[in-house]
Amino acid sequence: MKIAVDVMGGDFAPKAIVEGALLAANELTEQVRIVLIGNQADIQEVLGERTLPATIEIVHTTEVIAMGEHPTKALSQKPNSSIGVGFKLLKERVVDAFCSAGNTGAMHVGALFSVKAVEGLIRPAIVGFAPQVSGKMAVLLDIGANADCKPEMLEQFGEIGSLYAQYTHGVDNPRVALVNIGEEEQKGSLVAQAAHQLMKATKKYNFIGNLEGKELFTDKADVIVCDGFTGNVILKMGESIYDILKSRGVDDEFVNHMNYEAAGGSPILGVNGNVIIAHGISSPLAIKSMILLAKRQVESDVYTKIKQALS
Amino acid sequence: MKIAVDVMGGDFAPKAIVEGALLAANELTEQVRIVLIGNQADIQEVLGERTLPATIEIVHTTEVIAMGEHPTKALSQKPNSSIGVGFKLLKERVVDAFCSAGNTGAMHVGALFSVKAVEGLIRPAIVGFAPQVSGKMAVLLDIGANADCKPEMLEQFGEIGSLYAQYTHGVDNPRVALVNIGEEEQKGSLVAQAAHQLMKATKKYNFIGNLEGKELFTDKADVIVCDGFTGNVILKMGESIYDILKSRGVDDEFVNHMNYEAAGGSPILGVNGNVIIAHGISSPLAIKSMILLAKRQVESDVYTKIKQALS
Repeated sequence: MKIAVDVMGGDFAPKAIVEGALLAANELTEQVRIVLIGNQADIQEVLGERTLPATIEIVHTTEVIAMGEHPTKALSQKPNSSIGVGFKLLKERVVDAFCSAGNTGAMHVGALFSVKAVEGLIRPAIVGFAPQVSGKMAVLLDIGANADCKPEMLEQFGEIGSLYAQYTHGVDNPRVALVNIGEEEQKGSLVAQAAHQLMKATKKYNFIGNLEGKELFTDKADVIVCDGFTGNVILKMGESIYDILKSRGVDDEFVNHMNYEAAGGSPILGVNGNVIIAHGISSPLAIKSMILLAKRQVESDVYTKIKQALS
Repeated sequence: MKIAVDVMGGDFAPKAIVEGALLAANELTEQVRIVLIGNQADIQEVLGERTLPATIEIVHTTEVIAMGEHPTKALSQKPNSSIGVGFKLLKERVVDAFCSAGNTGAMHVGALFSVKAVEGLIRPAIVGFAPQVSGKMAVLLDIGANADCKPEMLEQFGEIGSLYAQYTHGVDNPRVALVNIGEEEQKGSLVAQAAHQLMKATKKYNFIGNLEGKELFTDKADVIVCDGFTGNVILKMGESIYDILKSRGVDDEFVNHMNYEAAGGSPILGVNGNVIIAHGISSPLAIKSMILLAKRQVESDVYTKIKQALS
């Protein structure tokens, strides 16, 4: 198995990325190879006197897509950027997963242009993880790829989210819920009401009904479906509560699970390959978590399961 | 000043309401009268051997609108219910505010049918309070009256929210922000993008731009505008984090401010009168807080300011 990591992406690149890869390599067997994509000299500078373990290799690139660049323009103008090369290797199946803490838009567009969306899926979604009081993590999607969603998109998010929970989290018959502002099916926005009906009618997964904001963490569901606007607000609000409480000296396991570093990355789900994006501020610990997440995803072969389910 | 309270509304009515009113009366001067609207015998049973202080009076009613009843139907069929009588007294200016922890829909519809929406306002909103790390509370609206919002509605929520922060919270030139999933004005849902342009163009208040989920509690804004779907999810997620952390033994002032009991109630803003709704599970402490909130609102005369601003 080969997991490619963009060394040049993220606020603390390349240092945080290289250090994170070293941490991950320590925990992985030699069956898992990490491919660092980025400038060799920069990587060497981070390493200093150290040498890379045999399980880490470098693919040298010279160009970088910066955080603020226009995704489509940057990708077409910089095919030899670390993101451009990462997707090339993923498309050619040289690597099994591609991870980056860089330009999120470029990662999203890159995935759609290279490995492409799974046929039959209206739009891929970005997955976040919502900590539950039991210690488990619920699959939350979409967290920002699609600010506006049609009911049909939400219905499909339930399906791909359910497959993700089943194959990656090992949950049998995952409980899928729809974020809404009331228990009853006639409650909520027009989109949520229509999505509820579609999800209720589907036989593809175990829809358990609406889930309110107060139930996001109470182990009610394994998969939590919402539009990317709502999901993004939920995710960032959770992260900020972690930051605030940490700075106030609160040390609680549930709160600690709201730390973005715990999951490390957010899969783009519904494309023909394993693509994971991480927070721009990613620390070495976050990068390590992202690589371990990529490994679990590759092992679960979830993207193939999704492809088969939708074909 | 007279503040009317529905004794029959809420999961723990009438006990929690009567006890809450007694707590509030203890903290108020004799210029503030509390009017308990509900069944006299039920109130007496709660009181037992105790007698009401001179500042609390009873308006006896026999009918009750239950939590699950259809708002419009219940209001027309039960004009002598505690909610029906409360709005009658509010409309006739016998009381200066009407508060209830009962059927939210009936309170919303009752407000629209009796004192009515302020002329010029597309739709009233329900206000919540978002605790800030400084200890202040930001005005958050809408938290559930309008699951679907047009950009023009959000623009107006900025205006009435700004007036609320100015007159009730005493904030000079309140900073108004729009909940969105990115800093840049072209980010977010179509509605958020269009609302941003309207808010940017307005001279009626101090619009400071988008606010992300991670900035809901960081003292960035005094007024936080969003659709009622997003606002409801934010509010209930916050309440649940309080519940979870409390049950886990976390005692932190910021967390404690997420307790619904701290604010006690949510004003319906943009109607011709002071109407406040409370959580169904309201405790005596929450009811007390709601009555004190009603007092501040009456003193600020904010609904008249809103009426004047929109005329």
